Amino acid sequence: MTNPDIRDAIMTATYEALCEEGYSDLTAQAIADRTDRSKSALFYHYGSREAIVAEFIEYLIEGIELRVAKTRDRPALERLAAFVDWFLSEPDDDERAFHTALLELRAQAPYNDVFRAKLRESNDRLQRALEEILRDGLEEGVFQAHDPEAVAALLLAAFDGAQIRQVTLGRNEYLETIRAGTVDHVLADILKPDVEFPETVAFEFPPDERLRDSSTADERTERDTVR
Amino acid sequence: MTNPDIRDAIMTATYEALCEEGYSDLTAQAIADRTDRSKSALFYHYGSREAIVAEFIEYLIEGIELRVAKTRDRPALERLAAFVDWFLSEPDDDERAFHTALLELRAQAPYNDVFRAKLRESNDRLQRALEEILRDGLEEGVFQAHDPEAVAALLLAAFDGAQIRQVTLGRNEYLETIRAGTVDHVLADILKPDVEFPETVAFEFPPDERLRDSSTADERTERDTVR
Repeated sequence: MTNPDIRDAIMTATYEALCEEGYSDLTAQAIADRTDRSKSALFYHYGSREAIVAEFIEYLIEGIELRVAKTRDRPALERLAAFVDWFLSEPDDDERAFHTALLELRAQAPYNDVFRAKLRESNDRLQRALEEILRDGLEEGVFQAHDPEAVAALLLAAFDGAQIRQVTLGRNEYLETIRAGTVDHVLADILKPDVEFPETVAFEFPPDERLRDSSTADERTERDTVR
Repeated sequence: MTNPDIRDAIMTATYEALCEEGYSDLTAQAIADRTDRSKSALFYHYGSREAIVAEFIEYLIEGIELRVAKTRDRPALERLAAFVDWFLSEPDDDERAFHTALLELRAQAPYNDVFRAKLRESNDRLQRALEEILRDGLEEGVFQAHDPEAVAALLLAAFDGAQIRQVTLGRNEYLETIRAGTVDHVLADILKPDVEFPETVAFEFPPDERLRDSSTADERTERDTVR
């Protein structure tokens, strides 16, 4: 077992290295350079570059759970709006870099059993989170009768396709178009006739705090301000 | 300009090499080995591995146009069903290998302006093909009033997300789930109330004949029969 602080440091370094180098060019050295540890110390903890990345997907999965937990006391409709917003908001530079690296990593999953298993788990976690929102909305009486499993799968596929097009084609307008289509054609079917899908979100889906490097963000703000 | 026969041979070789090696491991040598030409002859025609792959995306785009043209005399509803089936049918081994390689290639688009431009063109062609079906269906009186551009974008994003999940997570059941969700929640909105979405397709979306290597398929059938 790895000490939680060391794990956090290595996972944050992996996140930063992925954002900056992408997945194909990622090296254990690039991760080590972002910690106070050596490459051999990294290998001592995890064994291989692949194992570090697999652990990183696991870390993201835990993050989803932590982030979803923070929103459970909100009304289902607010949670649905925040969930849609999470996937279909225009990404900032860090998010774009991360989505780009994640897509490279996902593209390797057909060749890599470990990545595939972890990505399935991540996908199942998202699917369950969205189903939970839909079920809660049924109980709260804001949604009409529907099959939460099928609707959650459709929404996640559409969000995923929209994000991948945004990243690979470099067109932010996709996100807005798919959001409008989703609201008009899928969510309109789910909401009770007297319920409107909120035009603005009541809250933002919480970020994964563990991966926020405040000092870097400050430096970045400073740099942007100077520019 | 490259002689069309030579181009066909190189493009078919690129397709086969992509299916067998994936994109990351693709070499110009692997393409040359599948033609009667040398690697240097390939570079003489195209200049680089990247230029061959860019030309290959262009070749796929022309293929979409040829394939769509063959279906234009069919009723819009049959064309819509064939289009849905094209994306959401369980792929055979060749198709799965090709989708896997194509995803790797797409994952490189954020880093590669040439690929990104070609993939945009390919995406726009698909979008226009689907919009055309939706507009024809409006004229034929089988679809209700809707915005063909927004609906086509939503459908393509959902199909793309479904295919990517199928390929990366290795779960064919996604395609069936997303198809059911699409029919119940998106297509139900588009079809006139008295029109049903066909349960079976009247015709299959035509394959790209130029990329079918009949001798290889025969050998494969023979091998599979022997097994």
